[in-house]
Amino acid sequence: MLLRRLYSTASHSGGFQLPQTIRQLLSTSNKEIHGISVTGWIKSIRKQKNLTFAVVSDGTTADGLQAVVLKQDGTAPEVMKRLTNGTTVRLTGNLLRSPGRGQEWEFVVQEGSKGAIEILGDCDIDACSHSLKVIPALTPCSQTYPIQKKTLSTEYLRDNAYLRARTSHIAAMLRLRDNISRSLSRTFEVPPVYAVTEFSKLTIRPQKSQGFTYTHTPVITGNDCEGAGEAFRIASLPASDPDSQATPPEFFSRPAYLTVSHQLHLESLTTALSRVYTLSPCFRAERSMTGRHLAEFWMLEAEWNLVTRLESVEEICAFLENLIRSSVDLDSPDITKIWAERENGGLKSKDYKTLREAFDDAKTWRRMTYTEAIEALSSEHAKGHQKFEFEPKWGESLSSEHERWLSEVHVGGPVFVTNYPIGLKPFYMRVNEDNKTVACFDLLVPRIGELVGGSVREERLDVLTRRMLEHGLLPPTPDDGVDGAVGEEETTALNDSTYKWYADLRKYGGAPHGGFGLGFERLISWVSGIDNVKECIGMPRWTGRMIM
Amino acid sequence: MLLRRLYSTASHSGGFQLPQTIRQLLSTSNKEIHGISVTGWIKSIRKQKNLTFAVVSDGTTADGLQAVVLKQDGTAPEVMKRLTNGTTVRLTGNLLRSPGRGQEWEFVVQEGSKGAIEILGDCDIDACSHSLKVIPALTPCSQTYPIQKKTLSTEYLRDNAYLRARTSHIAAMLRLRDNISRSLSRTFEVPPVYAVTEFSKLTIRPQKSQGFTYTHTPVITGNDCEGAGEAFRIASLPASDPDSQATPPEFFSRPAYLTVSHQLHLESLTTALSRVYTLSPCFRAERSMTGRHLAEFWMLEAEWNLVTRLESVEEICAFLENLIRSSVDLDSPDITKIWAERENGGLKSKDYKTLREAFDDAKTWRRMTYTEAIEALSSEHAKGHQKFEFEPKWGESLSSEHERWLSEVHVGGPVFVTNYPIGLKPFYMRVNEDNKTVACFDLLVPRIGELVGGSVREERLDVLTRRMLEHGLLPPTPDDGVDGAVGEEETTALNDSTYKWYADLRKYGGAPHGGFGLGFERLISWVSGIDNVKECIGMPRWTGRMIM
Repeated sequence: MLLRRLYSTASHSGGFQLPQTIRQLLSTSNKEIHGISVTGWIKSIRKQKNLTFAVVSDGTTADGLQAVVLKQDGTAPEVMKRLTNGTTVRLTGNLLRSPGRGQEWEFVVQEGSKGAIEILGDCDIDACSHSLKVIPALTPCSQTYPIQKKTLSTEYLRDNAYLRARTSHIAAMLRLRDNISRSLSRTFEVPPVYAVTEFSKLTIRPQKSQGFTYTHTPVITGNDCEGAGEAFRIASLPASDPDSQATPPEFFSRPAYLTVSHQLHLESLTTALSRVYTLSPCFRAERSMTGRHLAEFWMLEAEWNLVTRLESVEEICAFLENLIRSSVDLDSPDITKIWAERENGGLKSKDYKTLREAFDDAKTWRRMTYTEAIEALSSEHAKGHQKFEFEPKWGESLSSEHERWLSEVHVGGPVFVTNYPIGLKPFYMRVNEDNKTVACFDLLVPRIGELVGGSVREERLDVLTRRMLEHGLLPPTPDDGVDGAVGEEETTALNDSTYKWYADLRKYGGAPHGGFGLGFERLISWVSGIDNVKECIGMPRWTGRMIM
Repeated sequence: MLLRRLYSTASHSGGFQLPQTIRQLLSTSNKEIHGISVTGWIKSIRKQKNLTFAVVSDGTTADGLQAVVLKQDGTAPEVMKRLTNGTTVRLTGNLLRSPGRGQEWEFVVQEGSKGAIEILGDCDIDACSHSLKVIPALTPCSQTYPIQKKTLSTEYLRDNAYLRARTSHIAAMLRLRDNISRSLSRTFEVPPVYAVTEFSKLTIRPQKSQGFTYTHTPVITGNDCEGAGEAFRIASLPASDPDSQATPPEFFSRPAYLTVSHQLHLESLTTALSRVYTLSPCFRAERSMTGRHLAEFWMLEAEWNLVTRLESVEEICAFLENLIRSSVDLDSPDITKIWAERENGGLKSKDYKTLREAFDDAKTWRRMTYTEAIEALSSEHAKGHQKFEFEPKWGESLSSEHERWLSEVHVGGPVFVTNYPIGLKPFYMRVNEDNKTVACFDLLVPRIGELVGGSVREERLDVLTRRMLEHGLLPPTPDDGVDGAVGEEETTALNDSTYKWYADLRKYGGAPHGGFGLGFERLISWVSGIDNVKECIGMPRWTGRMIM
């Protein structure tokens, strides 16, 4: 009541307000409303003798609004003919309680009333019969509106990426991305925020804040975080003289790449702001065709000064587990919609049940070391219960089949695998006292495998320098420098390196810190049940494919 | 009271919570607290005989926390020696009301107490005297901690970008980016949100929602929005055989660019979701050296189905004005801090006064057409009051001097200049009935010039096709197609074009829509008083320069 009063009295004087969306209308209304307008496009339409049923969507809800157009004297058949799948309309009528099954409300329009039906965008549903005024031959007769009601194949929708957000599951996925990024942001952000999700219900969800600053780190960089050579490179400029034999100039005076991770730059900001995160595009020029890889993807990355002991990644795991649990609402209409439409069982499937169990507050996600994981895999392999294509072996990477077995079969839920062998991980992860492993983790989840990777970062300058030499990130030195203490040659190599600034963070008051990178599309895939990350982003890019 | 109760009782069971930041501590505390810890780095330190004063910052507040270290028996001189500018420490002591001027609170530490002072990161303030254990020669003696307390030049800080977030004005700018992006997001977002900015004060700021979905559109694209040829291109892959004469392969099977704007892709999503926005990186390979251009910058772009008439951009202007007014709080400590530290007057300057007037709720921002703007400029030019380098002339672009005169002198505040000549603007802007101008605007503000550009988009397929031909965006046709109706050749050209999908949005139920793009760094520059956009982003990139 307090909130309601504040909401209705406080407003920006003269603030411009767009009309309510269908979502806002349905979530704030608890009584019938006469004489209002809604705008949306027709998802499906069924014309009968005396009335027409249409589902109208403006993309803000999972199910759209059921509209009923009643026939009257003074009808406008021309307008009615133009009402087809895909057409955008503004309807003026009454929001009434629906007598029909399947929805609480329906929107009733009198066909002949002035202004009751306004066409905002015609849809060329069949180019042969609906020729456009000026460009008769634009569409060959074989082409029609690509998004008809019938089921469309994933591949077909990828080819028609520019319109696929009109399918209910892609639209739900896009709303889910919005929804989860906002929730994540609320958990990270500085001031506490109270979110009223459905205003009419006055549900108040207090959000804890973790005191982070949201930052923008660069996409174009001279530093390759992983040192893996999978970065896209920006082309040099065309030579002004085409006959010139000179090397074409670099726009930035040195080679420039698209970042594969924002971590190194976040570490720089951590030195000043203590706790930072970003949700930003990352890029990998991998020739991968799996359902878990994209050439352009979004990554949630966080970095902060750790408050607990260094040889443990538990602080990072605990933070991350809390973050994901706080940011995902499995009961959201969009998640439910996507699972319900999923092939092979949907809301009744084992996959869905496993997912719900993962979000059961009573049980913490499992932690195990890499060594324990290898033991479990080897034992299983030896017993012959499960034959892996690749034999599990200490020192070797976990393959996808290993990761999924650990999560899906062995644990039956999310599992943090910690302390991988030093040889498997990047140069910046902190070397443990055993000198064989690093203080890191991968979070493995069912159906996906690796969802997040994170670590304590190496804060000791001498250890870091040696690791960079081993990884070939410094110019080579006469004695190769991998055999012991760091000498003068390594120092010179570091000073000449593009990673000098990164090393210098350790000299100038940088505190022990750590963080993680979460593949945003994989998170969407995990919680929504969408099997391929190409359907977890609006306009996917992968090897050989870039539409739009 | 209601909120306080809810806040204290509702919590995620077992949720991991990081310790309070200095900001959280200062904003929630209204009484003295004994025996707590704070973590931060030393901004400045003054050692006296019996006590030491240090300003400790964790980057979350504009001013840091005043710490007082009292000398005692059992002192630890070794630790005290290591307390220098830049060092990160964890202090345990008491938060007390400060008897001194300049701050409400101070943090008092007993030097000799166990665990009172813990060094988390040493700062190599002078490499000659503070040699590191293992790498004695790493830093030449001429190098010391780059961020000393004294004033540092802008150019010097650009060279030391990896540490410049430790200066108070860059840190304030980074927090301001966080703060404004969150406010923008709250105005756009779907559910209404109540932000409690300072919890102890229980200030409730109801936020209106405009019903938008936050979306992620691609950075890598085959479509060049402006058709201006200023896009960075992704390099082709190195040929597997270095002696090969074949054209090197494209990763995406076709030329790929970094996007100069997300608008075209947002238009695609508008067809399904009705109202969308993004805050994303954009890229321009311009050789510009001004204080208003970056090669990599962030742009806030919104696109929605318009609800008012098409030949007016007023809906977009009104929406935008409301958005900016709702999202900027000129009284925020960070904005105040940056203005206060600004050269040439700071909070007493004419620039600051002009800015405050722009946010006066009583006055709407001025609107004028391009034609009116040219008349005003020409009249001024003719009278000789103001000599412009470029003579103002209908049909020519407004130069920077024109834009700034209009905003700073003629209007004395922000001004929307609308309906530019068709020849000056991109192909997608809607042609007005006069056939000479387009339904667009630029928002000009003092000190900056153009802050935002926007328009109604051309929804008529035939007009759009002709404009694309004129702009050379379609393959050339035999009769060049600029002389009248669109014929079969143009249709074929469109079908072969990379813009076909964009044109098709007009065929399949796309409603009339419009939107804008706001340069995020320019917004920061305008409201904070920072003169150069290179200081309005953490790690700037421009022609010839890319550090880190």
